[in-house]
Amino acid sequence: MAIEVPPGYEPLGEEKVAAFLAAVPGVPERLGGGPADWSVREVGDGNLNYVYLVDGPHGSVCVKQALPYLRLVGEGWPLGLQRAHFEQLATHVVAPHVGRAVPQILHYDPTLFAIVMEKLSPHIILRRGMVAGTRYPRLAAQIADYMANSLFHTSDLALPARRKKELMAEFCGNWELCGLTEEVIFTQPYMVHPHNRWTSPQLDATAARVRADTEWKLAAARLKLKFLASPEALLHGDLHTGSVMVTADDTRVIDPEFAFFGPMGFDVGAMLGNLWINFFAQDGHATAESPRAEYQDWVLETAEAVWTGFRERFLALWRGGATGDAYPAAHFDGDPDAIRALEAERQAYMDRLFIDSLAFAGAKITRRILGIAHNIDLEWIADPDLRALCETRCLTLARRLMLEPGRFRGIADVSAACRSIRSEVRTAGL
Amino acid sequence: MAIEVPPGYEPLGEEKVAAFLAAVPGVPERLGGGPADWSVREVGDGNLNYVYLVDGPHGSVCVKQALPYLRLVGEGWPLGLQRAHFEQLATHVVAPHVGRAVPQILHYDPTLFAIVMEKLSPHIILRRGMVAGTRYPRLAAQIADYMANSLFHTSDLALPARRKKELMAEFCGNWELCGLTEEVIFTQPYMVHPHNRWTSPQLDATAARVRADTEWKLAAARLKLKFLASPEALLHGDLHTGSVMVTADDTRVIDPEFAFFGPMGFDVGAMLGNLWINFFAQDGHATAESPRAEYQDWVLETAEAVWTGFRERFLALWRGGATGDAYPAAHFDGDPDAIRALEAERQAYMDRLFIDSLAFAGAKITRRILGIAHNIDLEWIADPDLRALCETRCLTLARRLMLEPGRFRGIADVSAACRSIRSEVRTAGL
Repeated sequence: MAIEVPPGYEPLGEEKVAAFLAAVPGVPERLGGGPADWSVREVGDGNLNYVYLVDGPHGSVCVKQALPYLRLVGEGWPLGLQRAHFEQLATHVVAPHVGRAVPQILHYDPTLFAIVMEKLSPHIILRRGMVAGTRYPRLAAQIADYMANSLFHTSDLALPARRKKELMAEFCGNWELCGLTEEVIFTQPYMVHPHNRWTSPQLDATAARVRADTEWKLAAARLKLKFLASPEALLHGDLHTGSVMVTADDTRVIDPEFAFFGPMGFDVGAMLGNLWINFFAQDGHATAESPRAEYQDWVLETAEAVWTGFRERFLALWRGGATGDAYPAAHFDGDPDAIRALEAERQAYMDRLFIDSLAFAGAKITRRILGIAHNIDLEWIADPDLRALCETRCLTLARRLMLEPGRFRGIADVSAACRSIRSEVRTAGL
Repeated sequence: MAIEVPPGYEPLGEEKVAAFLAAVPGVPERLGGGPADWSVREVGDGNLNYVYLVDGPHGSVCVKQALPYLRLVGEGWPLGLQRAHFEQLATHVVAPHVGRAVPQILHYDPTLFAIVMEKLSPHIILRRGMVAGTRYPRLAAQIADYMANSLFHTSDLALPARRKKELMAEFCGNWELCGLTEEVIFTQPYMVHPHNRWTSPQLDATAARVRADTEWKLAAARLKLKFLASPEALLHGDLHTGSVMVTADDTRVIDPEFAFFGPMGFDVGAMLGNLWINFFAQDGHATAESPRAEYQDWVLETAEAVWTGFRERFLALWRGGATGDAYPAAHFDGDPDAIRALEAERQAYMDRLFIDSLAFAGAKITRRILGIAHNIDLEWIADPDLRALCETRCLTLARRLMLEPGRFRGIADVSAACRSIRSEVRTAGL
């Protein structure tokens, strides 16, 4: 391998996973039997790492190992192994607050940059379920809860400043994955870049128009600056529908290797933006046997419930647990007027966070259509003309979200915009 | 000493400074003669450290040593020695950009937490000069230049994200001095706290009114949150008129031990707020022999020139040297429309920074009248009634700056407010 790796590191490969696990405290007991009885299967369909599912006679585990390059591109794009460290660190920081919304980590090997964690079963990736048109009635509430708890409890509203600075300093070390986000979300989609791709030739003129759209580029740059310099809370950093695993009852958030202290709206917007992509993509998956109109209603309702649930839960946490150094509780525990004024301040805070979230959602949508990494929601639409039409609708929403997020007075306005864009945009290309 | 210190640390004391310097490379040559020929004088009149001026037959140096407690309060308020590390680190980071606006550091001793630097001579502390009514014709331009260069070159507009994160991580270690700022500027002045003091009894009712003023406290809390979570650039962190040394021609910025990555408006506002305090304080120093009306004009003109000079210089740096990761240059180097739009974006950025600066200026003024640390500008007004009147005018401005900074359309509006407050507020007490 041309890429340098630290001493002791080697990619495990399916054949070495069992031997590795045999020496991890507690894991042989969990799996049952011996290494010869364990089946190992590589399942990573993400862009970055290898993921092994290991089943034994008694139980299962999942092993995730970082590779010294970006899997999506290959060895031509080296990428530090430290992302595994930050993934397990982020999980340890948020787990006390989000409970079983994140997988339980059983072991971390800092030499192999490998995380051994519980295998989520029978969960599937949310994005796959939503492309198949499956409803998840508890999804919105559980994601809202995860976001509110992870973001609130790592913000200045809950953390003492010293502790927050200690954590922030550590996550500053995750500069490489932050840099990846800065490039592939906020920079490359707005310029000619060899990594970009789009549905061609249908969207060739659209991509060129975006690259020439100064207002759009300024909005992206403004968001990039916010991403760079607004450590409001510990973000998941890549909270799309591909980072969530679900059953009918259960929602679990995986893959926080992009974790760092950043603007909360980036996480919230990632989730919302990916739901709205799914809404527009359904028209590419509808068939006579599987009409998707009602499912689309469910997707919009889910996005609404994600936001309203998040807002309510976050506010409840703030009202009940403002143990951080911002907004000193002692200053506002007096008369009813002070309590009312603080509540108005909280509402204004959430209004600003809503606007941030919409703008970041727009950026997340745009990158999935014009940048390097695309979604199966759209990719799996076989007819390129139909796909380009769905993508054009996505971009129409994305531009409004990025340029004028403040014109949406509430989350229902975004649902209304989605519906009207769907009925009004009838041809591919902006 | 009851306070624990690291092995090898001891306060130097005047008697040990010469022996310490004798072993510092280059310093004996600079001073000339031998230790017995060197005179040592402790001159620290600040709140935190000991400062020794050392003169030899050929030259001079200054030695600044951190004590393990807050000098202003005594051993009852322990304070980490690391602040000396951050002071020399901050100086090393900004020196390449601000040149001789900061003292040259000759040596840093990490065991004694002692900095050996050039002795500034015949410079005096700006605040003392301004209390005496001395004009400094080059002050505004030189401070504006220092602020623009130090802030621009450590921001995301100039620094690559990785480098900024590395520096940010290091300065997160300065949590203790950041915490001091959070407490004494944004928290304590707005509550009953044993460290607070004010001109009593003249301002007793005023202090109580501030503590009951929910809007004022919310404004302070909002600024505190910005202070906690907006690492826009490497701040000096304590940029008042007591941290500047001057001659008629030369302006030097000292004492950056509070340095950290924070909101630029905090530095700019510290400077402006302290100039406006001086404006109001002049009425307490005017005599028949030394009328101060024209000097007050000069102070307001200076504040205006500080802001306009800072704004122009910062914009010029941005136009010419946007090497950072925010606002990717490649996105905006195209047609004249794009260039115009980016320029409008820059102007809007500076407008927001102006509003931030005014609000932080208000917080800095308030803390100097109701908090722990006061200014000689006001303290040296012997007549408490007159002092309380000047302080009331300061607080009147401060409240407007903090609560409605956006109503000031330009820096001249603040000068106008200063003048009208001075003529309209005729009795002590808000």
